[in-house]
Amino acid sequence: MYQYEYLHKFVLEVFARMGCSEEDATTATNVLLDADLSGVDSHGVARLIGYVRLWEAGRINTKPNIKIIYETPSTATVDGDAGLGLVVAPKAMQIALEKSTNVGTGWVAVKNSNHYGIAGHHAMMALPHDMIGFSMTNASPLVAPTFSKERLLGTNPIAVAIPADQEPPFVADFATTTAANGKLEILQRKGEEAPTGWIQDKDGNISTDPHSLKAGGALLPLGGDRLHSSHKGYCLGAMVDILTSVLSGANYGPWAPPFVSFLPLPDDPVGEGLGHFFGAMRVDAFRPADEFKSHMDNWIRRFRSAEPVEGQKEVLIPGDPERLSKQERIKNGIPLLGPVVDDLESVAKKMEIKFERGQ
Amino acid sequence: MYQYEYLHKFVLEVFARMGCSEEDATTATNVLLDADLSGVDSHGVARLIGYVRLWEAGRINTKPNIKIIYETPSTATVDGDAGLGLVVAPKAMQIALEKSTNVGTGWVAVKNSNHYGIAGHHAMMALPHDMIGFSMTNASPLVAPTFSKERLLGTNPIAVAIPADQEPPFVADFATTTAANGKLEILQRKGEEAPTGWIQDKDGNISTDPHSLKAGGALLPLGGDRLHSSHKGYCLGAMVDILTSVLSGANYGPWAPPFVSFLPLPDDPVGEGLGHFFGAMRVDAFRPADEFKSHMDNWIRRFRSAEPVEGQKEVLIPGDPERLSKQERIKNGIPLLGPVVDDLESVAKKMEIKFERGQ
Repeated sequence: MYQYEYLHKFVLEVFARMGCSEEDATTATNVLLDADLSGVDSHGVARLIGYVRLWEAGRINTKPNIKIIYETPSTATVDGDAGLGLVVAPKAMQIALEKSTNVGTGWVAVKNSNHYGIAGHHAMMALPHDMIGFSMTNASPLVAPTFSKERLLGTNPIAVAIPADQEPPFVADFATTTAANGKLEILQRKGEEAPTGWIQDKDGNISTDPHSLKAGGALLPLGGDRLHSSHKGYCLGAMVDILTSVLSGANYGPWAPPFVSFLPLPDDPVGEGLGHFFGAMRVDAFRPADEFKSHMDNWIRRFRSAEPVEGQKEVLIPGDPERLSKQERIKNGIPLLGPVVDDLESVAKKMEIKFERGQ
Repeated sequence: MYQYEYLHKFVLEVFARMGCSEEDATTATNVLLDADLSGVDSHGVARLIGYVRLWEAGRINTKPNIKIIYETPSTATVDGDAGLGLVVAPKAMQIALEKSTNVGTGWVAVKNSNHYGIAGHHAMMALPHDMIGFSMTNASPLVAPTFSKERLLGTNPIAVAIPADQEPPFVADFATTTAANGKLEILQRKGEEAPTGWIQDKDGNISTDPHSLKAGGALLPLGGDRLHSSHKGYCLGAMVDILTSVLSGANYGPWAPPFVSFLPLPDDPVGEGLGHFFGAMRVDAFRPADEFKSHMDNWIRRFRSAEPVEGQKEVLIPGDPERLSKQERIKNGIPLLGPVVDDLESVAKKMEIKFERGQ
């Protein structure tokens, strides 16, 4: 078990050694560790070594000149200058918040960025301002559209954060696939089969072998197969790809750069880096904020008190699992898997930073 | 088989007899018949009798004073004054287009409306202006959130329309459930079982009996069950419910008014009528429109030319099936099922309008 403060100090030091300013290192560390706190273990310190390797490969610029290259009163396009997505994303969301303050809503497309941590973190930046926040990103192509043998889309998550009054906020944050890669890795380790509807093999056949993905298969869009409306998951993933990357000038579809540094970049890029898309809408651009938030309380209470199916305690509100995880892990610490700790140790050794197992 | 022009003339006359102005009757007819042309038979003239009955029950105002009740440079909230959704929606989308012209994007929440036909029609109004269009609506509660026995959400569709240059536009338009009610009705008529993941029975158990829904069961959110990420479909349906109805001041969740006139309205409304949400974003608020549209062509061509799985001809682009249906039905006519023709005849008789079978 690792205390939040201990990991925070360590990760901050790593980003500082990579050349980030103190402000940027702090931002990046906050975003990365928010994933660990929220129980989204795949997007937290487990990815730190990946960022370090991308930086070593010269694919991350830790002194980026992040700037607006196009704008209107309610929109902006931002060039991330190959910066850490963990730093570029909050800066872009900040621009969306400012536009929203001025004209009711703000929408920011970002090119030339990298992986940005958990989508929900950025959407939630809207909440203290009584705004609704949106956050999306494209990602390395691992997903086959309906009827496709080829992987053309990333897991392309969508996050939406909506403020309430007395109740905690509504925070949805989900990949547009049936299952995430991390869940497959768990099945691989356990030697268990995957449910149908999660993956297909390299020939495009339904597969239950969790190793299929690494053997040239693909993750399936939310829905799984056509009978269960995988074309809707494909629509969602495609929408995210277009808003984040065609709109901004990033690499879209199969041209999205891989996160792992050992895979080569496509030699015929159609844009720059990965793309994100952020939005912020002032609640009081539509109705008085207190009215809206009191109805959100009512919405949340009605859904939470719905009669549950047998075997389930209650109907959850989007954001409940992450919020409960956060409370628990701030108090009791963050569990890390052995291989993740090994990776952190190797980063520590390389950078000559102190890291003790089991803190 | 019925010719488009013949049905158009008939439906126009029906809306005129209901008291719509010529302009409103034309708008409503265009929207309704766009569904029939697009092959979305459940949302076209099959619903005409439903609108007539709502009007007879005094739930539709055919001379509405549709007005903006709240606005900022990029947003508006519209009171539909209990007008036909088929009329209210295009007017609200028009406001979104104007806001977008002025400040880059426009976002309009609507309360006090009714069913608005196919979501995609309104989103597609953005296309001639080189804008990206969004359209959502809530609907009668038929869907159980993950772990819920109760029906709390509608099929709550999302539509997104994105312009290309030489290629036809990308148009996604889908309910946030695994299957739509119309598909269940087809299985009922054929006496066939439903796939697992479409519905649950009144006790919240997975069901394959297509009659379960009418017997107190529920449609399932996209994903089907928790193992296949139904919580993501639940998040999407909930987001649509909140944006369309909590934001606008309409009835949300289980309070959404039923489409069928024989079901009573909830006696403790939390808002007015149904809610919609529309958006428009000028492509050139992010990058030059010709650049964007040429990359959209590239996106579409790359996806369409992906290697298909065995047994499938090609990977489809969202909007392909509806566009092909439209071309075919404008040329060869619109097929209508017997019960739909019976309904049209009964409307014709009641309103003393001429209607001949099989035109």
